[in-house]
Amino acid sequence: MPKPVPTQQLIDGLLRGDRLALARAISRVEDDAEDAAGIVQAVFAHTGKAHFIGVTGAPGTGKSTLVSALVESYRASGVTVGVLAVDPTSPFSGGALLGDRVRMTSHSGDAGVFIRSMATRRGAGGLAKASAEAMLLLDAAGFDCVLVETVGAGQAEIEIASVADTVVVVEAPGLGDEVQAIKAGLLEIADIFAVNKADRKGAARTVAALEMMLETGAAAAQPIFHHGQRMEASTARSETDAKEEWSIPVLETVAVSGGGVAQLRDALERHRAWLVESGRRAAREGRRLDHILQTVVQAEILARMERALPPDLRRHLVEKMQQRETDPYSAASDLVQKLST
Amino acid sequence: MPKPVPTQQLIDGLLRGDRLALARAISRVEDDAEDAAGIVQAVFAHTGKAHFIGVTGAPGTGKSTLVSALVESYRASGVTVGVLAVDPTSPFSGGALLGDRVRMTSHSGDAGVFIRSMATRRGAGGLAKASAEAMLLLDAAGFDCVLVETVGAGQAEIEIASVADTVVVVEAPGLGDEVQAIKAGLLEIADIFAVNKADRKGAARTVAALEMMLETGAAAAQPIFHHGQRMEASTARSETDAKEEWSIPVLETVAVSGGGVAQLRDALERHRAWLVESGRRAAREGRRLDHILQTVVQAEILARMERALPPDLRRHLVEKMQQRETDPYSAASDLVQKLST
Repeated sequence: MPKPVPTQQLIDGLLRGDRLALARAISRVEDDAEDAAGIVQAVFAHTGKAHFIGVTGAPGTGKSTLVSALVESYRASGVTVGVLAVDPTSPFSGGALLGDRVRMTSHSGDAGVFIRSMATRRGAGGLAKASAEAMLLLDAAGFDCVLVETVGAGQAEIEIASVADTVVVVEAPGLGDEVQAIKAGLLEIADIFAVNKADRKGAARTVAALEMMLETGAAAAQPIFHHGQRMEASTARSETDAKEEWSIPVLETVAVSGGGVAQLRDALERHRAWLVESGRRAAREGRRLDHILQTVVQAEILARMERALPPDLRRHLVEKMQQRETDPYSAASDLVQKLST
Repeated sequence: MPKPVPTQQLIDGLLRGDRLALARAISRVEDDAEDAAGIVQAVFAHTGKAHFIGVTGAPGTGKSTLVSALVESYRASGVTVGVLAVDPTSPFSGGALLGDRVRMTSHSGDAGVFIRSMATRRGAGGLAKASAEAMLLLDAAGFDCVLVETVGAGQAEIEIASVADTVVVVEAPGLGDEVQAIKAGLLEIADIFAVNKADRKGAARTVAALEMMLETGAAAAQPIFHHGQRMEASTARSETDAKEEWSIPVLETVAVSGGGVAQLRDALERHRAWLVESGRRAAREGRRLDHILQTVVQAEILARMERALPPDLRRHLVEKMQQRETDPYSAASDLVQKLST
């Protein structure tokens, strides 16, 4: 086995924008390697410049294709782009490698693009932490824009709202009832809606439905994020001279042919400008850093717990539960007590 | 506001099989109410009888309809059924209420069926804990069979494998590439595959693809669950006289017309019998209880962390990160240190 590349060499390479060093550094973070924390610490001072764009939507909306079209659009104007495809649906298989490879091919040879799939067997918490850290690494490596693509299901959609400057929610016509239910959650995190596959039947109805939901929702809108959101709200309140609200656009796109992508790109630029002018950019960065802090603290505490848990005691407690001699709460407090002593 | 029903009254009612008491008890668990732990503790001695069946699959596979068809089949032979629809995709909206209501109607007036949607704003961890506890409540309330339906995306599919006796993975023909990627994860947790919408084009191909994946996968199969799976593996090894392996069937169903449902029901019965005969039933219960123990311990530890975290310190650390005067790991260790003192 070849000797692993020394940490300092990775850090230096990454900060120079070396792709291989960046790829390796992301792997260290993904694997939760011993030097993962050190890498993040070393490059953190060089972060804070990238525009983080979250792209999320249900399976089948074509968001990977849309991300690819956006990459093309950014590259055409010389903007460098990092892409993280975060796939919490494949904890076992190691991510959506197929889609990744397809896209890799179309942008291969372009040093201004870096595409990476993130997946982990370490569970949702581990993936959230690794993805957030990989975002920092791409920022430190000098990419102007970092697209974070994630399937809009479960916790991932909340995560993306916590880490992105701008959230694009991708919809598509005619995905059926179950997918409609997902919308309710996505509605609350979108800065921009893209109705993709807009050349299909029902696109106009999807657009109309979203616009109606936005109108209805706007009246009832409430801050939903516990810590991060409150932070943003209070920051926003203090910026009384930049009070103008962002009006969420609903755009039609046909990613496969590039239709509507220029308009989406334009909306992204407008949102970015709005964040800066309204003073919200700093608030969103604060939310992102607070979220990263939280994932690191939780990981640290849960790791300590894992290390401290005597496996024999745990097995013994499970056996006692199976005999109905104890219950989950009594067993848990036995364990927690053991951890505190 | 009406006075809340006393805890003891809920417990007594639930153990008598009173539906309203059961519904209220589940709400207490879902809301993480003060008496949630007490309810679980009180009824735990009455658990251990139900057959827990997990039904999972991607959006659009028609698994809700299939669950409904299964309920009908069970009811026709006098088996009582509880259904939990766990929807991690709607943390904001409060679950797939539409589907729930539709199904409620078709089984309404039947005291042998209880259907409930679970959702929570408390994040994936909170939902996992509440769902596992609700399963215990349904078991204690006397339901012979508890169907846990969850969308096959992300962490939920791992959870279901940790808590069910039998896992049914629902597929459907022609759901596109992205959905195919989900399969890789689901493959490793399935005890039974149901290819639903089998009257559609491509069903035979989906069946063939699954059978091929099963053949390929069987050779490379490895235990993937850290604690629970290892426990099961070691238990299995000790049962040398019941060594026969379970052969995962791939069944075709057309849930809307009831086609293939009898065969699915039959496979479920066979799996249940196999669990008992092979000695695996106890191992799966151990895995389930270990999982519940873990969720309770994690919730307790994270709650302690939340309570102990001084919000001012957290805000201060985020500001220092924004100034690049500290980094996420240094800030986290400041916080963790504060927690330990």
